[in-house]
Amino acid sequence: MPEKQTFNIAFQPVGRRTETSAGKTLLEAAQSAGIELASLCGGAGVCNSCKVRIVSGQATPPSPDEQAALTAAELRAGFRLACQTLPLSDLSLEIPPESLTTSQRLQIEGQTAEIPLQPPVHALDLHIQPPDIHDLRADDNRLLQTVKAHNGHPYRISERLLPDLSPALRSLGWNLRLGIRGDEIMAILAPQSPLLGLAVDIGTTKLAAYLLDLQTGKTLAKTGAMNPQIAYGEDVISRIAYANTHADGRQTLQSRLIDALNNMAAEMCAQVGASTAQIVEIVAVGNTAMHHLFAGLAVEQLGAAPYVASVSEPLEVWAEPLGLKAASGARVYLPPNVAGYVGADHVAMVLATGIWQTDKTAIALDIGTNTEISLHHRGRLICCSCASGPAFEGAHIGAGMRAAPGAIERVQINPEGIQYQTIGGQSPVGICGSGILDAVAEMYKAGILDARGTLRPGHPNVRGAGRSLELVLAEAQASGLGRDVTVSRHDVNEIQLAKAAIRAGIEILLKEAAITAEEIEDFIVAGAFGTYIHIPSAIRLGMFPPLPVERFRQVGNAAGAGARQMLLSLQQREIAAKIGRRLEYVELAAHPAFMETYTRALLLKG
Amino acid sequence: MPEKQTFNIAFQPVGRRTETSAGKTLLEAAQSAGIELASLCGGAGVCNSCKVRIVSGQATPPSPDEQAALTAAELRAGFRLACQTLPLSDLSLEIPPESLTTSQRLQIEGQTAEIPLQPPVHALDLHIQPPDIHDLRADDNRLLQTVKAHNGHPYRISERLLPDLSPALRSLGWNLRLGIRGDEIMAILAPQSPLLGLAVDIGTTKLAAYLLDLQTGKTLAKTGAMNPQIAYGEDVISRIAYANTHADGRQTLQSRLIDALNNMAAEMCAQVGASTAQIVEIVAVGNTAMHHLFAGLAVEQLGAAPYVASVSEPLEVWAEPLGLKAASGARVYLPPNVAGYVGADHVAMVLATGIWQTDKTAIALDIGTNTEISLHHRGRLICCSCASGPAFEGAHIGAGMRAAPGAIERVQINPEGIQYQTIGGQSPVGICGSGILDAVAEMYKAGILDARGTLRPGHPNVRGAGRSLELVLAEAQASGLGRDVTVSRHDVNEIQLAKAAIRAGIEILLKEAAITAEEIEDFIVAGAFGTYIHIPSAIRLGMFPPLPVERFRQVGNAAGAGARQMLLSLQQREIAAKIGRRLEYVELAAHPAFMETYTRALLLKG
Repeated sequence: MPEKQTFNIAFQPVGRRTETSAGKTLLEAAQSAGIELASLCGGAGVCNSCKVRIVSGQATPPSPDEQAALTAAELRAGFRLACQTLPLSDLSLEIPPESLTTSQRLQIEGQTAEIPLQPPVHALDLHIQPPDIHDLRADDNRLLQTVKAHNGHPYRISERLLPDLSPALRSLGWNLRLGIRGDEIMAILAPQSPLLGLAVDIGTTKLAAYLLDLQTGKTLAKTGAMNPQIAYGEDVISRIAYANTHADGRQTLQSRLIDALNNMAAEMCAQVGASTAQIVEIVAVGNTAMHHLFAGLAVEQLGAAPYVASVSEPLEVWAEPLGLKAASGARVYLPPNVAGYVGADHVAMVLATGIWQTDKTAIALDIGTNTEISLHHRGRLICCSCASGPAFEGAHIGAGMRAAPGAIERVQINPEGIQYQTIGGQSPVGICGSGILDAVAEMYKAGILDARGTLRPGHPNVRGAGRSLELVLAEAQASGLGRDVTVSRHDVNEIQLAKAAIRAGIEILLKEAAITAEEIEDFIVAGAFGTYIHIPSAIRLGMFPPLPVERFRQVGNAAGAGARQMLLSLQQREIAAKIGRRLEYVELAAHPAFMETYTRALLLKG
Repeated sequence: MPEKQTFNIAFQPVGRRTETSAGKTLLEAAQSAGIELASLCGGAGVCNSCKVRIVSGQATPPSPDEQAALTAAELRAGFRLACQTLPLSDLSLEIPPESLTTSQRLQIEGQTAEIPLQPPVHALDLHIQPPDIHDLRADDNRLLQTVKAHNGHPYRISERLLPDLSPALRSLGWNLRLGIRGDEIMAILAPQSPLLGLAVDIGTTKLAAYLLDLQTGKTLAKTGAMNPQIAYGEDVISRIAYANTHADGRQTLQSRLIDALNNMAAEMCAQVGASTAQIVEIVAVGNTAMHHLFAGLAVEQLGAAPYVASVSEPLEVWAEPLGLKAASGARVYLPPNVAGYVGADHVAMVLATGIWQTDKTAIALDIGTNTEISLHHRGRLICCSCASGPAFEGAHIGAGMRAAPGAIERVQINPEGIQYQTIGGQSPVGICGSGILDAVAEMYKAGILDARGTLRPGHPNVRGAGRSLELVLAEAQASGLGRDVTVSRHDVNEIQLAKAAIRAGIEILLKEAAITAEEIEDFIVAGAFGTYIHIPSAIRLGMFPPLPVERFRQVGNAAGAGARQMLLSLQQREIAAKIGRRLEYVELAAHPAFMETYTRALLLKG
């Protein structure tokens, strides 16, 4: 058997794939794929800036330059210099953030509602009399009795705090601020230390984190990052498979995630001159799989029919055993899950969008590999999850990529030519979700596509013939790739599958509520992708029903906003728990009208 | 400087010291010290049975035989074959239990009171309907709703149990026994599995463990072992020093202890054909330092004046984070500490002896390096701790050793000679606590000692002259050592210090209660050493007041008995908590009458 001369290289977390020849370095492969991998020395193997990690596959052994530049631990973990490494098989590579010259667009903004503060932890400043030979009370009693003398509450000390109790009292010279949660003393801090809270939205692809002051309610810092679990699978199903088929797979996924969250928390704390030990409370939201992987719950049953959650009740667990850096007695609140594919992040979104308390008929949805949709109508909350697939994340699309610099994000097609806009205004290297949505909608509008998704010749940018017809969005000489950026019939079909799933979900919910689309007064599009899409394109494709555009609202990261609300208010958690119980879940796979609705929705028409 | 030609070798946990010459192997040193180290091959370096661990000091490098016989991990941990190793400095050695041909005497027996069962965990057997496409409830809700249908209680699931929840339900085929603790589901077991409880008494020297059936109250198994922390210091002060001066010192001490307890639990479970996963509840008692090291609490403040406990309130902590092998939701109950040197084991002892509910004036004490004493008089419970020192453990006594085979444990002196009895009836190799107590009392009775502890010539077994006079208990030819087993003036003085501390503690308590010794109606002697002492000798020495012997009771391991009672009954824990609050602690060091009382008690007289 002759040796394979070309290999497929997958770059994570940017989500870009390329084919490369056996004699090319990984740096060259990255460059030909349009990935802006740092390379200060131009491939001489000395600057150590093109560091990548081989997640799977075989490559040439480390060069002497690499052995000098990388630590033994890095080499063991699969880190390599891309300029020194040739593939020996198909490879999956992870690019650490510091090896990218430009970073991806992360959605962390989102509108939070004005809510009255009712934080789970409050502060109490104290001076305690130190022990002497005539007052030999143990430190715990000394503390508890001093607190009692202040306000009479019979507090107890968190078991997590006990190991630090005596050293903390002494190192602070018996002057301290307590963090008190319910009837429990959960943190001992220096007097006047602000009590901080951390809210995290754990997306399958992206992480968003917010640092809040629990006493003022102010958001002090926010940051985004890619979910490092992407290296182990792009979607939840492949991550569940990884967890189920690797020894310690679940632990690996959990610890990579926790490490990333810790880094984000430390970065934000550094920004505001605080310590992670001041983080006294955490709220985490995510889809059911992310929720389970974060909290260390079993995911096997999520990966096989009938796809049930292990835990759907609201959770309060210790931060420390999860590996989170925070006050030793800090707890993590996770709102309820609704079903295997409608998770705590959806509950957070329903909370933040306010559709649980509206008088209107309203829809709120968050588009992703799974798109969760809730419909409010006359007090009922009905929800479902659609398998919309990863096309909007750039996967399964020939030139697809995530929303990173150089991605075409907006497209307009005129008879004489095509205008596009890229993220960061750079030369185009691919198409992200909003770009492909626009492209397909504009192709349909321009008559390049018929309603079934078949390409038609005629437009100057349409090349090829028959089933291999394709639209050239950007010519080779204009692109950052050195070759055309195109949209094929296959790409169009992927978008049809995705948009049909979403529209079918909406239609089934309307059917359950026995109403028509026209009755929707408020159509709320949440989430990163939803923020950037061009609503008229989504309507034109039939992904959304043909409502007046003023009924649509793009609200950004509503799950993250809901997480912040629950961080600041116990009442918001009670509401979230009620939302979890109120949401009526419709299993589309079991719904008699689903197949017919879905098939009809495949057509390109509003 | 000439090289040192003799070295001191300390053998732990047997507590024996010997001087050896530089050219002798550790096996020869052990043999000359009368330690029955296993040596199947007679020192040829092939049987691997004389394995010891060097805790501190220098020795010759591992021989080829050792490198073949021991793993790399063992060599790194300091394990050596005693027959192949020569000392290059003073050494501290740890002898693993399997390297001893005979084991030490461990006190695990003790009288438990008959108490009504009120265990913290009870069982509920259930069948749960598995999920299907028409019933997609999450596993937690499915379980909770099934339980609710059974008995209406709104239970919640322990956060410790959640990671195992879904796999456990499926592997048991949805037929299961729940362990329920309060309002928490804390274990999922196979139907009909007995719910087991573990009670442990953590002594500074010895560990005792009991496996109980929580539903019947029966003690299914019991076992004893040496506390492996001995290798890091014989008494609590040196262990606290070790914890404070070594990186991870506290963690090392904790994990060695937990490992030993896990081994004991596993051994007992194997005996009764159960799994440690059936252990649903644990009660642990120990002195304050052992309590803190077990529970992972800070000990620094226990090692310096004014010697206060970090935690004195009763504790309920998770078993799993401590490293204990048990059901994942199992909790450990620790009764309250009273002071830095009156710990939870004393509370357990007060509980088990019943002096908290007697009408009588009663004393209960447990003799050790620290001797804790409680006096009950007309509803008051007054307690103290005496620094009685390690003499009764065999330390600081020339021929002293712990209560292991070959130790002289009973002595009788007649004008014409001496009778003694050894543990196991073997040739004498040293003297244990009860033996040295007897020896000194008999020496005083026979006129060999005056009241100040000065030896007098005249008895055929008294040799030497002036301050170097000594009593030969066993001649070289009779002993297992090849030399005389003797009692010196120094040994007598050590016993005087020890017994004076105990008597002074008793006298101060009587003074606090404003009564005389004659009013003591019940004098309870608990603990391992207390079980074996000859009461008339203790009275003759003045260690105990001169009461009629029928007022004394030797009750064995009362702390372990109390731990078992608290394992079986929540009411017993409430009583223990009350005892903790009732006990009035007297700090002897701060008591105005202490020094004078102590000085008077140094004299040898009843």
